[in-house]
Amino acid sequence: MAAKYVSINNQLFLEEDAKIGVADLAMHRGYGIFDYLKVIDNRPIFIEDHLDRFFNSAKEMYLEVEPDREQLKKTILELIEKNGIATCGVKLLLTGGYSTDGYAMGKPNLIISQYPLNMEQENEFDMGMKLVTYDHQRQLPFIKTIDYLMAVRLQPFMKQKNADDVLYHNTGVITECPRANFFVVTEKEIWTPAHNILKGITRSKVLKFRISGYPIVEKDFSIDDFKNVREAFITSTTKYAYPVSSIDGRMIGNGKIGPVTRQVRDLLFKLTYAK
Amino acid sequence: MAAKYVSINNQLFLEEDAKIGVADLAMHRGYGIFDYLKVIDNRPIFIEDHLDRFFNSAKEMYLEVEPDREQLKKTILELIEKNGIATCGVKLLLTGGYSTDGYAMGKPNLIISQYPLNMEQENEFDMGMKLVTYDHQRQLPFIKTIDYLMAVRLQPFMKQKNADDVLYHNTGVITECPRANFFVVTEKEIWTPAHNILKGITRSKVLKFRISGYPIVEKDFSIDDFKNVREAFITSTTKYAYPVSSIDGRMIGNGKIGPVTRQVRDLLFKLTYAK
Repeated sequence: MAAKYVSINNQLFLEEDAKIGVADLAMHRGYGIFDYLKVIDNRPIFIEDHLDRFFNSAKEMYLEVEPDREQLKKTILELIEKNGIATCGVKLLLTGGYSTDGYAMGKPNLIISQYPLNMEQENEFDMGMKLVTYDHQRQLPFIKTIDYLMAVRLQPFMKQKNADDVLYHNTGVITECPRANFFVVTEKEIWTPAHNILKGITRSKVLKFRISGYPIVEKDFSIDDFKNVREAFITSTTKYAYPVSSIDGRMIGNGKIGPVTRQVRDLLFKLTYAK
Repeated sequence: MAAKYVSINNQLFLEEDAKIGVADLAMHRGYGIFDYLKVIDNRPIFIEDHLDRFFNSAKEMYLEVEPDREQLKKTILELIEKNGIATCGVKLLLTGGYSTDGYAMGKPNLIISQYPLNMEQENEFDMGMKLVTYDHQRQLPFIKTIDYLMAVRLQPFMKQKNADDVLYHNTGVITECPRANFFVVTEKEIWTPAHNILKGITRSKVLKFRISGYPIVEKDFSIDDFKNVREAFITSTTKYAYPVSSIDGRMIGNGKIGPVTRQVRDLLFKLTYAK
């Protein structure tokens, strides 16, 4: 659930009154983009990266963002202050707007919602995630659109497979999870897929890390390569680096967090909490 | 623009008050299905086919339709009466509902909107449509979802190419237009793509027609086959059968409606206006 106040087109509404007319193109044609960032103790984390991506997604989808970058930052901070929640997730959602014919774009609606974060939960994990692979290539993967049609539809499938998340592959070539990037640790390298993915902001931070003895390489690899994998982890704004314990029921390493994943995770925490 | 009243979850709202909370999964994840039918002089056209498809789309996407079939028909007719528009388009839109975490499905929202139809316009056409081909395969093409991300994004491209609509192909194999099925007339047969498409209701009617000398065959064909094509047309609820005058700037036939397209169009009108 979102926090008490939600911003729609720079106006604050109580969450229960935060509504959009049914003519919006997100409703009719699934047309919109978004971004999601963390705020810790009133500090928005990696906000410049998120705003870069948000404005770029908007541009790629021909959606105009009415407030400029500084106004947008101000609105985010005002919302945080108004809600009085210093540590949270913030979602910026930009829709196709009210369409006169249900197909052509209108003037985009900008919705900013704040979500309380459970910090204790975020610092904990148990045995790592169980992934199940699925053959699907997201359309326009390089843009952060609201298209999660397949991901949401696969939720019953995930449950049935006793998995925590899906790992997409494109006819055998691994790409990404619906909301996270994917990494494997082999004997001598760390690999993360190079193509047909959304290049996440956490991923970009990890690519700059120097992990002793393990160069990090952007390269495409296949399901068959899993047999040589010692560790696997996903990265996202929400999850930092999170260990993967099994893929398609086959255990990765000893099923627990490995030393490389631990190191990447620690470095991400350090970067996030640096003041 | 929709007519004066819109039905949301079986309650009538004035169009300007017809709103949905920002937590709906259509807004956040582009998750929903719809259907669209015509009503002529208070007679819903092919309503059983449309409801069959609507309930099937809902089932395929794990969305529950709260009203049963008879209730749904009643609601549609009540809306038409309330709006006092006997000839119109009716859109049924079923969304993923209010999600507690922005990802899991909620209880679906059902929105029924009515759109006035300009009947004079509908009986007219000038020179036929200009299509531009584009390599894209819709995800879950057999379900009538709200995913038109690519189609809406291609609107500037269409304009730039001076085209009226896009014709999708899957690495050269023709599939469909974003909102219509596609047919070609060759020397001895009428072809319409067989796979990776939404099988439209107008298409299903055309498949049952007997056009003298031209068996209608469901078969996949490629862009290269266009050179042998005498006529091309699209079919949809809105357009009936509508001639295609050119594809990628190359004229089809003499660029005007051909005798087979004319015959299919006439048969569709006859079927639609039969009482």
